[in-house]
Amino acid sequence: MRVLAKDIAGLAQKEAGKMVELAGWVHRIRELGGVSFVILRDRSGLVQLVLEGKTDLTLESVVRAEGQVAINEKAPGGAEVRVQRLEVLSRSEPDLPFPVNGDMAKVGLDVILDNRPLSLRNPRIRSIFRVQATIIEAFSEYLRSEGFTEIKTSKLIGSGTEGGTGLFEVDYFDRKVYLAQSPQFYKQTMIASGLERVFEVAPAYRAEKHDTPRHLNEYVSMDVEMAFIESEADLIELEKHLLAHIFEALAKKNAEDLAAWNATVPDSDSVFKAPTIAHDEALELARAEAVRGSQNTSTGSAAQGFFEISPEVERLLCAWAGREYGIDLVFVNQFPRRHRPFYTYPASATHTMSFDALFRGLEITTGGRRQEQYQALLEVLPRFGLKAEDLKDYLAVFKYGCPPHGGFAIGCERLTQKVLGLSNVKEASLFPRDRRRVSP
Amino acid sequence: MRVLAKDIAGLAQKEAGKMVELAGWVHRIRELGGVSFVILRDRSGLVQLVLEGKTDLTLESVVRAEGQVAINEKAPGGAEVRVQRLEVLSRSEPDLPFPVNGDMAKVGLDVILDNRPLSLRNPRIRSIFRVQATIIEAFSEYLRSEGFTEIKTSKLIGSGTEGGTGLFEVDYFDRKVYLAQSPQFYKQTMIASGLERVFEVAPAYRAEKHDTPRHLNEYVSMDVEMAFIESEADLIELEKHLLAHIFEALAKKNAEDLAAWNATVPDSDSVFKAPTIAHDEALELARAEAVRGSQNTSTGSAAQGFFEISPEVERLLCAWAGREYGIDLVFVNQFPRRHRPFYTYPASATHTMSFDALFRGLEITTGGRRQEQYQALLEVLPRFGLKAEDLKDYLAVFKYGCPPHGGFAIGCERLTQKVLGLSNVKEASLFPRDRRRVSP
Repeated sequence: MRVLAKDIAGLAQKEAGKMVELAGWVHRIRELGGVSFVILRDRSGLVQLVLEGKTDLTLESVVRAEGQVAINEKAPGGAEVRVQRLEVLSRSEPDLPFPVNGDMAKVGLDVILDNRPLSLRNPRIRSIFRVQATIIEAFSEYLRSEGFTEIKTSKLIGSGTEGGTGLFEVDYFDRKVYLAQSPQFYKQTMIASGLERVFEVAPAYRAEKHDTPRHLNEYVSMDVEMAFIESEADLIELEKHLLAHIFEALAKKNAEDLAAWNATVPDSDSVFKAPTIAHDEALELARAEAVRGSQNTSTGSAAQGFFEISPEVERLLCAWAGREYGIDLVFVNQFPRRHRPFYTYPASATHTMSFDALFRGLEITTGGRRQEQYQALLEVLPRFGLKAEDLKDYLAVFKYGCPPHGGFAIGCERLTQKVLGLSNVKEASLFPRDRRRVSP
Repeated sequence: MRVLAKDIAGLAQKEAGKMVELAGWVHRIRELGGVSFVILRDRSGLVQLVLEGKTDLTLESVVRAEGQVAINEKAPGGAEVRVQRLEVLSRSEPDLPFPVNGDMAKVGLDVILDNRPLSLRNPRIRSIFRVQATIIEAFSEYLRSEGFTEIKTSKLIGSGTEGGTGLFEVDYFDRKVYLAQSPQFYKQTMIASGLERVFEVAPAYRAEKHDTPRHLNEYVSMDVEMAFIESEADLIELEKHLLAHIFEALAKKNAEDLAAWNATVPDSDSVFKAPTIAHDEALELARAEAVRGSQNTSTGSAAQGFFEISPEVERLLCAWAGREYGIDLVFVNQFPRRHRPFYTYPASATHTMSFDALFRGLEITTGGRRQEQYQALLEVLPRFGLKAEDLKDYLAVFKYGCPPHGGFAIGCERLTQKVLGLSNVKEASLFPRDRRRVSP
């Protein structure tokens, strides 16, 4: 029976001399005084193997080792395995393009992404995706506990709900279809169907040409939709509970992964203190914050103000909230109608029941209440240059009774990025896609 | 505070006369002796509302009702709500294309799929997707408990691992990419990366033209990959545990949904009794089973035998296993090398460490151990007409040490179909895609 690296120290305490079998990757080799010290890496961590004589192992080869556990205070973790039998299961070629056991901060992002099979072996890089797995698990877990049903909807759509811009085209037998930008239409269908509360974790596609540290052309969208709400305030409340649950799960399950990135997560209490600021007021606040900043540093002509929630405004608002509320999480609501899709529920003649969530300087969520009245949808379409004929499938959802509802989506990679403090969202995607990158 | 339909009977027992608020859809209306009986449907079930006088409600409208709970043995569930205030939140147009509250077995599959926003309101139709949600939840839950990490990988691939047939082409900026047929390549990358045990639940695409009750062009693939296995036997063992866990979860959480389809799930003990039969022997067994059947009925010239595990063979093998082992679940292993992809690990010169799982007459899983030796992969490629240059990204996974490993995928819709006894796999897809269907 194979044991894991993390269990060796405990075994050495209890049963020194016990024979064990280990398997994993050759992480590091050091030869000293006729003895070889090999650090073995498996999914649980690192452990030192001691072999008599020199070794012809190559770094990153996969080996199986049998030996006796022993206490050694000088070894990592305070224990080691004195190897009696070692078998190479898969030999690594010696021409590694970069040292897996080194400091990946010195390796450029393109090299890391071009060599995913290798760069993911670095424990710190791999930890990003353990964190991401917990985010997805905790997201799903909380929603299930609140009566939400997980759904899986098609990513191939006959036409775009919000028009054809930003869509990737797919050759589908003898016609064209598109990759879905979001499960918006399908989430709303499930609301109208009577499931009332649904969520989906699935890929979403944006055919946008910009290549920035905050954009991916394919990303994992964590979507929520909920019936019988009054306004976006119900959704903000739900997202606070969700984020608090996710942060708690990370603190509990991923303490080592967080530590590897010098990262901490906000505690639950502070999540519930995050402010909600109306869009127009948020722009004013950002201007004041920019002025305040330019007194200390020299960030330029901030006093002129802002016209929209730009990346700079996102950073300024989070800085402000961090100072005033002790958490760099802000909800901005009441976006102007012209900034939001046609299906957003109006709060007034000019504004909507919509919101964004900004976390650590980055928008991680967009959401809002949706218009559920069939007649109101028909009336608003022309104002957005849309025609009922082109939206027949969408409108059918509302024709036969749909409750008041709304929802939002959290960008999984963006949340992962901000939890760990990664400088580029692509670091938080296993196999990111951008304008130039389609492999590995 | 809104209460749910399922809680009314309990409330009536404990606090008859209590005022409650309900919200949901108008499922059925009956007028009798100056009183209207309205069956309200919400996500939890049905409840009877009693209103004075006639009502101008339309079926499927969404309403909010306030009234007093009361015991009434004649009402469904033994209780009702005597309404004092009723508000229509969203009025349904009266021209329903079919009765939502009727027997959907009388409505054709195309009508059901064309009208998903409406057909999903039928409690029996909706129950399919509550069952599916439990399948996904239980699958993930069991794997997490065994140290598997959830991954999310790209569905846009630069080229096909197994050649370009059966791939949908995507216009990706100024080049062509393809929709992934499976996360095979990425799962193996994560094995080599040292996560060792991974799973993914995500869409997969097959550009196959056949339109049958067992095929979808887009389906939800529940994928597993696991390092340090010896042979496909380890994978079959894992799948038995997974299926047993899924069936237990369904029996516990979805008893009503199963009952709606007169469906039962196998108990755990019987799952572990399911036989494993080598491919060549399975063909012989199917022939014998066909002969046996043709003695009773008249299924034709079965005595001629079979050359591959066809749909008919799948049915025959499951019938045999049901009779001999008490469960219609069979694992077929040791497929010939020519029937399996190049990366399948050989068991001999002619056969492979591969398997299929057949459940209730249908293949629900394909899997196997993979070749992890870089040199062996290079040597086998020409025999499959493949070139190393075209598979550079794939081969890179093995160049620097990869443990022995393997995996499998369960078709989520197929498992859902067979659990409930649905006649067409499309019934188990919320928004199925086939050659002609790309909406809703």
